[in-house]
Amino acid sequence: MAEQRIAVVDLGSNTGRLVVFRILPDDGWFLEDEIREVVRLRAGMTEAGMAASAIQRGIAVLRLFRRFCDSVGVQTVIATATSAVRDAANGAQFLERAREVSGWDLEVLTAEQEARYGAVGALGEVPMENGLVVDIGGGSAQVSRAVDGVWVEGVSLPLGALRLTEMFLTADPPTGEEIDALRKHVRQELATVPWLKELQADEGLAGLGGTIRNLGYMQHAHLGWPLPTLRGFSVSRARIDELIEGMVSVPLAKRARLKGLNPDRADILPAGAIVLQELMQATAATEVQTSVNGLREGLLINHLHDGNPPTGNALRDHSVRSLANRYGLMWDHAERVRFLAGRLFDDLQPRHGFGSEARQLLEAAAILHDVGTVLGYHDHHRHSAFLVSLNGLPGFTARETALIALLTRYHRKGTPTRGVYRRVLRDDDLKMLRWLSAFLRVAEYLERGRSGNVRDVEVTDWGRRGLELDVVASGDAAVEQWDTERQALPLLEAVCGTRVRVLVT
Amino acid sequence: MAEQRIAVVDLGSNTGRLVVFRILPDDGWFLEDEIREVVRLRAGMTEAGMAASAIQRGIAVLRLFRRFCDSVGVQTVIATATSAVRDAANGAQFLERAREVSGWDLEVLTAEQEARYGAVGALGEVPMENGLVVDIGGGSAQVSRAVDGVWVEGVSLPLGALRLTEMFLTADPPTGEEIDALRKHVRQELATVPWLKELQADEGLAGLGGTIRNLGYMQHAHLGWPLPTLRGFSVSRARIDELIEGMVSVPLAKRARLKGLNPDRADILPAGAIVLQELMQATAATEVQTSVNGLREGLLINHLHDGNPPTGNALRDHSVRSLANRYGLMWDHAERVRFLAGRLFDDLQPRHGFGSEARQLLEAAAILHDVGTVLGYHDHHRHSAFLVSLNGLPGFTARETALIALLTRYHRKGTPTRGVYRRVLRDDDLKMLRWLSAFLRVAEYLERGRSGNVRDVEVTDWGRRGLELDVVASGDAAVEQWDTERQALPLLEAVCGTRVRVLVT
Repeated sequence: MAEQRIAVVDLGSNTGRLVVFRILPDDGWFLEDEIREVVRLRAGMTEAGMAASAIQRGIAVLRLFRRFCDSVGVQTVIATATSAVRDAANGAQFLERAREVSGWDLEVLTAEQEARYGAVGALGEVPMENGLVVDIGGGSAQVSRAVDGVWVEGVSLPLGALRLTEMFLTADPPTGEEIDALRKHVRQELATVPWLKELQADEGLAGLGGTIRNLGYMQHAHLGWPLPTLRGFSVSRARIDELIEGMVSVPLAKRARLKGLNPDRADILPAGAIVLQELMQATAATEVQTSVNGLREGLLINHLHDGNPPTGNALRDHSVRSLANRYGLMWDHAERVRFLAGRLFDDLQPRHGFGSEARQLLEAAAILHDVGTVLGYHDHHRHSAFLVSLNGLPGFTARETALIALLTRYHRKGTPTRGVYRRVLRDDDLKMLRWLSAFLRVAEYLERGRSGNVRDVEVTDWGRRGLELDVVASGDAAVEQWDTERQALPLLEAVCGTRVRVLVT
Repeated sequence: MAEQRIAVVDLGSNTGRLVVFRILPDDGWFLEDEIREVVRLRAGMTEAGMAASAIQRGIAVLRLFRRFCDSVGVQTVIATATSAVRDAANGAQFLERAREVSGWDLEVLTAEQEARYGAVGALGEVPMENGLVVDIGGGSAQVSRAVDGVWVEGVSLPLGALRLTEMFLTADPPTGEEIDALRKHVRQELATVPWLKELQADEGLAGLGGTIRNLGYMQHAHLGWPLPTLRGFSVSRARIDELIEGMVSVPLAKRARLKGLNPDRADILPAGAIVLQELMQATAATEVQTSVNGLREGLLINHLHDGNPPTGNALRDHSVRSLANRYGLMWDHAERVRFLAGRLFDDLQPRHGFGSEARQLLEAAAILHDVGTVLGYHDHHRHSAFLVSLNGLPGFTARETALIALLTRYHRKGTPTRGVYRRVLRDDDLKMLRWLSAFLRVAEYLERGRSGNVRDVEVTDWGRRGLELDVVASGDAAVEQWDTERQALPLLEAVCGTRVRVLVT
C-alpha cells in the first residue's frame, strides 16, 4: 500500500471536526492535521429543523473542509454527522446541500454506531481485551462491552453530563440532596442494562471522550505524571471518589481553577464524574483506563482493518512498528539489533530469569532505539525516549511504555536509572531495566557498522569463571569487538557479576 | 538534485571520524550519523613511521567505515587524513593499504588546508563576515582571517593546548611564573603573524574546535542558557578571563569538576584558554562567537558550494530553508503564510516602525511555524519552537533564533511572552515579539484551509477609528473570516490599540 491520507469528518452538534490521518506504506498511521470549527447546529433548532444560520455555518465549514482535503492531498474521506443532523426535520435537505458543496455523502451515525466506533477507537489503544468501554458525552453516555478485544454490544443511555447537570445540579455548589437524586437516577438507568450485571470480576473498564479524559488530566496533574500522554494511564476508583468530592464541595468559580480541570467543563464535569462513579460501583471496577483515541480514530481503524483490528500482542506489535515507520526508521539495522539482543536474552535466561513480557519490551526498544535520530543525531538516545513517551504506545501500559523509553535512552551509554519514571515503575523494575539495557547495548555495538557484519552471537556460560560471547561475523570484526568491549561490556559484567569476553569466529 | 548522502572521513592522530550528512533535494543538509573511533596513530611512532599496531587500528577502522557507508547508502565520500599520516615516514604505504581496504584515496590535508576548511565550517554558521577564526587544537592552533564571509588567509601556529601544557604548566595548580612564561611565549608566536595587527576595530572573532567549544559549554552552564545549542552563542572577554582564573586557581582534581568542563580536557584547557585570551588581547576582541561546525562541516560546505558558500542574508535564508526541508515542511502553505504576514507587516509599517531585521525574523518564523508537526500534530507550535532552539539557525544570533522560536510558539494561540528566553532578549524585544506574532497569527488563520483561498490582504488604516483588513479570496471565505476574527484579531487589536475589522471582497 502506498502512503496515503485519509480524512474523517465528524459533524457534531456543537463542533465540526476534520482530522487528517497519514497512513504509512508498511504499517501504521498517525494524526497529521486537524481543524475544529464551532458550528452550533442545534442553535435555534425547531420542529421544522435546523435554523438557516446554523445550516449556513455547517455548509461553510464543510466547504472549507473540502478545500482543505483537496489542498493537503487526501485520497479517502470518511464523512459522518451525528445527533443534530440525525434529529433535525430538515436533515435530509441539509445532507443534500452538503453533497453539493463538498461532494461527500455524509453518513448519519446512529447512537449505537457512535458507541461502537468510539469503543473501537479505545480498544485500539487501551491494554484491555475484556470489559466495558464508556464515553460520557453532553446529552448521552455510551456504554459498550468488549470480549477478546472486540466490541460485542453497546447501549446509549440518557446520562450525558450536560443533561444531568441541568436536571439535577442547579445549586452552586450542588447540595447533598441534589447529588443523591442524581445518583438514584443514574442507578435506575444503569439497571436497565441487563449485561452490566454479567461482568466477570477481572474485566476492565476503559473510558474515552472529554469527561473521562478531563478526569484523567486532573489526576495526571495531581501526580505530576512523567509521561506527557494519557495513553496507558488509569485512575483508581478511590481517586475518582476524591476528585468528585473536591469538585462538588466548592462553588463553580473555585472549581474552574482546580488543577488539570478545563474551565469550560467546570459546570458539567461533576455530573459526568458521578455517572462514571456509579458505573464503577455497579460493575465493581477498581480503575478506569483512559483512552486518547475516540470516535474518529475508531472510524479510521474500522476502515483500515475491515472491522477486524489488531488486539493484544498484535496491537502491541502494530503500535511499535507504527511509531518506527512514522519517524522513518532504518529497519535493517533495527531488526538486526532486535535479533542479537533477543539471542543474548535467551542464552542468558537461566541467569536473569525474566519471561516473555521482558523479552517483548526488549524487542520493542530494539526496534525503536534510533527513532530519535529524526530530531537530530546528537543525543538521539534521549530523543528516542522523548518520542516514545510523547506518543505513548497503544497496547502497552504506562509502566511498559516508560521501560521502553528508558531502554532506548540507555542503548548507547549511561548508567540505567529509573529517573523521572520512578513512580510509574515497580521497585524491582530497575533490575530488569539494567539487564535489558545491557543486552540492547551489546547488540548495538555488535552492529556498530550497521552492515550486518556480525551475523550472530552465542553465549557460553562458564559459571563463576565468566561468560564468553561467541560472535559470528562475515568479515573482519575487530572494531565491533573493541567497541563492544569498551562501550557495552562494563554494563553486562555489572549485571552478571562476572567477567565477559568477546570472541570473534 | 536528488536526496543523497555524503560522508566525510577524518582520520586524525588520536581519533578516526566518519560523519554522514544527508543532503536534501531542495536546499540544506544535516548530520545524520557519526562514528568516532580511537585509532591512536601516533602511539609508538618512530622515525620509521607509524607502528604496526597503529596501522592495524587505522586500517580496521577504515574497513568498518567503508562497510558503514555501503550499508547506509552513501553516494560520495570525502576522505581525508591529517597530521599523523602527514608526518609519518610510512604514510604512503599506509595510504596504499587504506586504498586497498576502503577503495578511498585519502587526501592528506596540509596544516593550511586544515585551518581553511575549519574556518569555512565556522563561517557557514557564525553570524560574522569579517574577522578572525581560531581553532586551538592539541598540537597547534589555526588562525584564519575572513573578509566578506570568505576565508582569505590562515596560519598554523605551534600553540596547541597539549603542547603548551607539557612545555609550561607542570605544577598542579600551575604557578604564576609558569603562566607568565606561557603568556610570553604565546605573545611571541602571535607577533610573527603580521596581519593580526591590521584588523579593524569592528571585526569579529569566531572559535571552533574542542577547546573553545568547551569554554562555551562552561559559560553556557554558568548562565543556564535556555537554547540547547552553542549556535549563535558568544563568550565575552571578561568571562574568558574569569573562566581562566577559576581553572588555574584550583588543582586538576577540583578543576575536573567545574560546571560544563569536560573532565578529559581538564589538564589542557587552561593553556588553550590562555592562547585564546592572548589572541583576544592582541586583537582587542571583546567576545568570541562559538561555532558548532568544524573541519568536517567545512569540507562538506566547500564540496557542496564549489568553494563559494552562502554568507550573510543568503546564509540565513539557506539555514531557514534547510531546517524546513529537513523536517518535511508543507511549502505551499508556509509560503502563503509568509506572503500574507509580510503584507501586514508592510502595510502597518507606519504603526510599528520596525525595519528589515524584524521582517526577516517574521519571514523565517512564517516558513518554520509548522515544522513541529513532524513530532506530532498536538502542541505542534511548541514542537516548532523546540526544534528551532534545538538546532539553532546558522547565520542568526542566539537572540534572533530565540525570537524566531517564540514566534513559532505563538503562531496559533497564547499571549506572547519572552518566557525562558528572557535573558537572551533585549528589554524592548517583547514589543516586537507581540507585533510580529499578531501578523503571523492573522496570516495563519487567513490560510486556515491551507488552500490559498485567501490570495491577498490589504490594510486600510482609519487611524483612531481602527483598521480594516481587506481580504481577497478565490471562493467563499466565511470560515477564514470567522476564525481570524475569533482567534487572531484580539492580539492584533491589543498591539494596535484599536479595533480591527475583516472584510472579504
